[in-house]
Amino acid sequence: MENIEIIKDIKLDCSFAIFNDSNLTLASGTVLKNFRLAFKTFGILNKNKTNAILICHALTGDQYVTGTNPITGRDGWWSRMVGPNKPIDTNKFFVICSNVLGGCAGSTGPKEKKNNEQQIYGGDFPSLTIKDIVNAQTKLLDALNINQLFSVIGGSMGAMQALQWSVDFPNRIQSIIHIAGALKHSAQNIAFHEVGRQAIMNDANWHKGNYVENNSIPERGLSVARMIAHITYLSEDAMHRKFGRKLQSRDIISFGFDADFQIESYLRYQGRSFVERFDANSYLYLTRAMDYFDHSETFRKTLQFVNSPNDHIKYLVISFTSDWLFPTRENKEIVEILNNLSKNVSFLEVDTDKGHDSFLLDEPDLDYAMKGFLESNYGKIDD
Amino acid sequence: MENIEIIKDIKLDCSFAIFNDSNLTLASGTVLKNFRLAFKTFGILNKNKTNAILICHALTGDQYVTGTNPITGRDGWWSRMVGPNKPIDTNKFFVICSNVLGGCAGSTGPKEKKNNEQQIYGGDFPSLTIKDIVNAQTKLLDALNINQLFSVIGGSMGAMQALQWSVDFPNRIQSIIHIAGALKHSAQNIAFHEVGRQAIMNDANWHKGNYVENNSIPERGLSVARMIAHITYLSEDAMHRKFGRKLQSRDIISFGFDADFQIESYLRYQGRSFVERFDANSYLYLTRAMDYFDHSETFRKTLQFVNSPNDHIKYLVISFTSDWLFPTRENKEIVEILNNLSKNVSFLEVDTDKGHDSFLLDEPDLDYAMKGFLESNYGKIDD
Repeated sequence: MENIEIIKDIKLDCSFAIFNDSNLTLASGTVLKNFRLAFKTFGILNKNKTNAILICHALTGDQYVTGTNPITGRDGWWSRMVGPNKPIDTNKFFVICSNVLGGCAGSTGPKEKKNNEQQIYGGDFPSLTIKDIVNAQTKLLDALNINQLFSVIGGSMGAMQALQWSVDFPNRIQSIIHIAGALKHSAQNIAFHEVGRQAIMNDANWHKGNYVENNSIPERGLSVARMIAHITYLSEDAMHRKFGRKLQSRDIISFGFDADFQIESYLRYQGRSFVERFDANSYLYLTRAMDYFDHSETFRKTLQFVNSPNDHIKYLVISFTSDWLFPTRENKEIVEILNNLSKNVSFLEVDTDKGHDSFLLDEPDLDYAMKGFLESNYGKIDD
Repeated sequence: MENIEIIKDIKLDCSFAIFNDSNLTLASGTVLKNFRLAFKTFGILNKNKTNAILICHALTGDQYVTGTNPITGRDGWWSRMVGPNKPIDTNKFFVICSNVLGGCAGSTGPKEKKNNEQQIYGGDFPSLTIKDIVNAQTKLLDALNINQLFSVIGGSMGAMQALQWSVDFPNRIQSIIHIAGALKHSAQNIAFHEVGRQAIMNDANWHKGNYVENNSIPERGLSVARMIAHITYLSEDAMHRKFGRKLQSRDIISFGFDADFQIESYLRYQGRSFVERFDANSYLYLTRAMDYFDHSETFRKTLQFVNSPNDHIKYLVISFTSDWLFPTRENKEIVEILNNLSKNVSFLEVDTDKGHDSFLLDEPDLDYAMKGFLESNYGKIDD
């Protein structure tokens, strides 16, 4: 029996699953020892343990999916979606959300201490893949004595994790809700990530990732990386509607490099505030994990067996008309393969101008689809 | 009579128009003294001076539109378009191309010395607008004793200049060819520029623009700015076709932050090589000039008079289907206003997957349209 502790941290308002003497072999071949995952649960696990839902967060998310995030003092990142009587109804479901391996909200990652040492990982943290992140999540389920998930749900990088679950652990899931993702990270998406990484790694305060030891933070680089990414999360139409060429706190242009336009001051704010809550190395490792994600061959292969272990899985794939980071056509590639192989898949393209970020915003069609999908399957579970 | 010198620089293979004791009042109100413009001409000016074409370069262009650029040793940026028997035929036309005010290929800009002093402008260079850039060009025409241009031609920032000419100096032009531009710089475009500027200004080597005095160059910031911009110059389809997820000089991913993917190594190369040929401050000032460009109100107003001074101008507007920086719909806004007011306008949308950069690339439809437009009007000129 592995030596696993589960402790509750009152101050951080979350739990930690600490895997002592546990080895996690990563896709790179590196073995990660003594790792831990920070997580939160909501709702009550039923007697037969058939109502557990795992929510996978996106690149900059964390375990604080709903309720108040004790670090920022703000609502969880999906408070509108998760809670009593909400689309992911915690009166019915036992919701688990863990900070990803490599993250910076408590799980083992570059800003945490190395395997029982005092030194921080920093740039020595091993390279990660989405597969590794999901593998670590299965250890958490083991620790919670949950064999099978009612559903795995995620948007963006969370959608990648949901898809990875369906490929690697089909027997442990009943369904996935895949929102605004793709079979693989596209060349343009890799390009945007790479520029963000270069902004961080070019910051003189980065010190090859060992900035904590050097008492510095690559704030400026991380802020620029966030600004770039933020542009890709919005649609051009939404940006035009929200900001257009409106000036910020002035009537005429300043003829200088101040933030004359509202869009500039908005992006600068996004960059600044991100630095307060996110670790630059985590940003490097997680963007890289996304870049490495590629099921363009493997997904179909996994499913095409007669009596494949995936046959029982119910898939819901959702995209947004104005999402240019993970556009509808890339989400549809998944749907087409599933349809082609006569799997159980529903697809919804939500008509919205809010871009990739739509999955985090008020989109009633998204709520209805998710609620409907979960409830229709909930009636059949054995509690 | 103003004190204007025109000198030829053999080594730099271009000419300089030096405006001594000349004042150029900028849109900001600042007066620029003793400025100079680096320029090149091609072909022969006819007796009646009716065959002169001004080519306006884009953000990172220069006066070396065709022939060999003596600094880079490479072909001029529009060699395929300009020359004997080429679409802009130097057997027929006298072509002028000058480095924009604020540029870094010889014209007065932040890397040049201040008004007869030894000190370099750096961050003290005054804020610029497209209007200022065009104003300076008119001084060059005066110096060359050319009253009227057969055409003003430009793509991207060059298109902005062409439009500005038509608004401010309609009596000095017969036609414009406006390629891949817009009436105004959009919120998304301002956003991308702003992130690039932040990358430069956040570089510890920037020193508030006075990096030359500090013997440093904000190379890393400028390189990141170029990488961001470069993504916006390509279309997603072209990037996918050209690079996809192909790996660079390796069979499997490296599990690290090297340039695993070809798109990464391509962008890094673009960033590195740009730093060798471009000044970081010029990048700041010129992107700002583009952001400030806004004729969404003024263009229509200028044209709507009965017998407006623009009535004689022939307009050719060209856009590219896959250009998401200056998309067809933004180019068409210009065409719609012109059509609305019964002006003489032709419009062409070139079907291509090469994105914004198409105007610099091999696009036969672009060549035919430009050649046809110029030749049909050439027949009517009085040489």
